[in-house]
Amino acid sequence: MPSPYQHTYEFEVRDYECDLQGIVNNANYQHYLEHARHKFLTAANIDFAALSKRGVNLVVVRIEIDYLFPLRSNDRFVVASNVIPVSRVRFGILQDVLRLPDHKPIVNAKVIGATMDAVGRAIRPPADLAMLFLK
Amino acid sequence: MPSPYQHTYEFEVRDYECDLQGIVNNANYQHYLEHARHKFLTAANIDFAALSKRGVNLVVVRIEIDYLFPLRSNDRFVVASNVIPVSRVRFGILQDVLRLPDHKPIVNAKVIGATMDAVGRAIRPPADLAMLFLK
Amino acid sequence: MPSPYQHTYEFEVRDYECDLQGIVNNANYQHYLEHARHKFLTAANIDFAALSKRGVNLVVVRIEIDYLFPLRSNDRFVVASNVIPVSRVRFGILQDVLRLPDHKPIVNAKVIGATMDAVGRAIRPPADLAMLFLK
Amino acid sequence: MPSPYQHTYEFEVRDYECDLQGIVNNANYQHYLEHARHKFLTAANIDFAALSKRGVNLVVVRIEIDYLFPLRSNDRFVVASNVIPVSRVRFGILQDVLRLPDHKPIVNAKVIGATMDAVGRAIRPPADLAMLFLK
Repeated sequence: MPSPYQHTYEFEVRDYECDLQGIVNNANYQHYLEHARHKFLTAANIDFAALSKRGVNLVVVRIEIDYLFPLRSNDRFVVASNVIPVSRVRFGILQDVLRLPDHKPIVNAKVIGATMDAVGRAIRPPADLAMLFLK
Repeated sequence: MPSPYQHTYEFEVRDYECDLQGIVNNANYQHYLEHARHKFLTAANIDFAALSKRGVNLVVVRIEIDYLFPLRSNDRFVVASNVIPVSRVRFGILQDVLRLPDHKPIVNAKVIGATMDAVGRAIRPPADLAMLFLK
Repeated sequence: MPSPYQHTYEFEVRDYECDLQGIVNNANYQHYLEHARHKFLTAANIDFAALSKRGVNLVVVRIEIDYLFPLRSNDRFVVASNVIPVSRVRFGILQDVLRLPDHKPIVNAKVIGATMDAVGRAIRPPADLAMLFLK
Repeated sequence: MPSPYQHTYEFEVRDYECDLQGIVNNANYQHYLEHARHKFLTAANIDFAALSKRGVNLVVVRIEIDYLFPLRSNDRFVVASNVIPVSRVRFGILQDVLRLPDHKPIVNAKVIGATMDAVGRAIRPPADLAMLFLK
C-alpha cells in the first residue's frame, strides 16, 4: 500500500522535552514539525540554513495545531507531511504526528509559509522551492 | 483609556531564543504565550504547577497562531490576553504579542484549552478556574 | 578494534538548536549529553522517568564542559560515554561529543551525579543503578 | 553594604523550563547564565548580536557548574556575575545563581570565554570588550 504522505520522518521523545505535567511540552511539537519540514526540504535538495545565509528566509506565517493526545517519555513517533496548494507566494503543508508503532494520532497541523528577504519583505520563492510545491 | 485586555505581561527577547535566521524561533512564541497564560492564572490565584500535582492538568487542545512580524535580539514586548467563551468544558484565550514601545503587532493567537485528569480524560474545570472563565 | 566507550548514541543537529551565531547553542549540548545518559540507563534497563515517578531522582551535581569546536546545521555526531568511579553515593560519567564521520572532538564533559529523594536529600542509589556503576 | 558582584540580573522560573522531575532542567541554567552575561555586556555598551553580525563571536570554551539546590516553578532568583582575569586572549566570569528572597545558593558557575572570528579562529578581543575585562 503506498503511503498517503509525501514525506515522513521518525523521532523519539527525549526526556528534556517533557514538562512538569510529565508530557511533551506543546512548544516542542513546533520543533518536531519544523525539523520534519527541513528534512522534507533537504530530501528535495533545498538547504534551509544555506538559503538563510543567502538572505532567503522561509518563514511560517500561520500555524494551526490540534493537540489530540500527549506524547510521553520514550514514545517513538513519526511526522508525516503533505504539501497543499495555497497561492503564488504562499505554500502550505499538512503535518500529522503519529505515535509508533500504533499510529495513534497525536497532533494535526496546518502550516502556511512564505518566502521573505533578509529584511522581512515577501519575495517569490526560488525556482527549486517553487518546483517542490508545484509537484 | 482603559486597556482592552484582561491581562498583560511584559517580556524581553533573550539571545538564545533567536535562531540562525537571527529572529525568535517560532516555537518560542508558544513559550511566551504559555508563560503569560500561567501568569494570568496566577493573578487569579490559580497555580498551574500545584494543579498538575493534584492530577488536574490544564491542556491546550488547539492553537492558531498568525506570525505577523518577527521579534529580534533585545526586543521588548508584551503578551496581552483576553478570555473568550467557548463551551462548558472548553475555554478560549485570545493572545496578542505586541512589540514595545511601538505596539507593533507581532503575533495573534487563539488558544483553546480543556481540563484533563492525570490519564488524559476531559473533566469539568475546578470551581476557581470556572469562575475565571465566567467573568 | 573494540570501542573505548561503554555506550555511544548518534544524533543530528536540528536547525532550531542553532542560535544567531549559526552554531549549536551551548545549552543544547547539555540536552545531548543528558539524552545520551538516559539512553545509556535505558540500555541497562533503568528508566529515568519511571524512577522519577517513584520519587528517586537522578540529578547532576556538577558538570565540566570543554567546548572544543562548534557543531553546525545538519552535522551528525555521536555522544560517547564511560562510567568512572567517584564515591559510594556519587557517580561519574565522561562524555565525548564527536562529529561524524570524521570523529573530530567537539565537546568533552565530565558529569558527576547523585541520587536524591523527592525532597532533594541524597540517598543511596537503587541496586540496579549501583550495579551499572560497579561494572 | 556594597554588593560583592559587578553585575546582577533578576529572573523568575517559567513552568516550561521545568522537566518531568518538577525542577528546572539543568540545561536551562546555561540559558540563565548566558542571558545574564549578555545583559552584563549590554550594561557595558557591548552588543552580543551586533558583534556576531560583524563576524566577532564571543564563545564559551569551558564551563564548570555546581548544582547545589534545584529551582522550582515560580521561584525568583538572581544571577550575580564577576569578571576574573584569565589570560590575554581568554576571559573568565564567576556566576552565582541565588534564590530570592532568601539568597539560597542554587548554582555556582565558572565560565571561560574567548573571542573567535566567523570561521572559529581565536582572535584578540575588540577594545571595548578588553576594557571590560581589564577593569
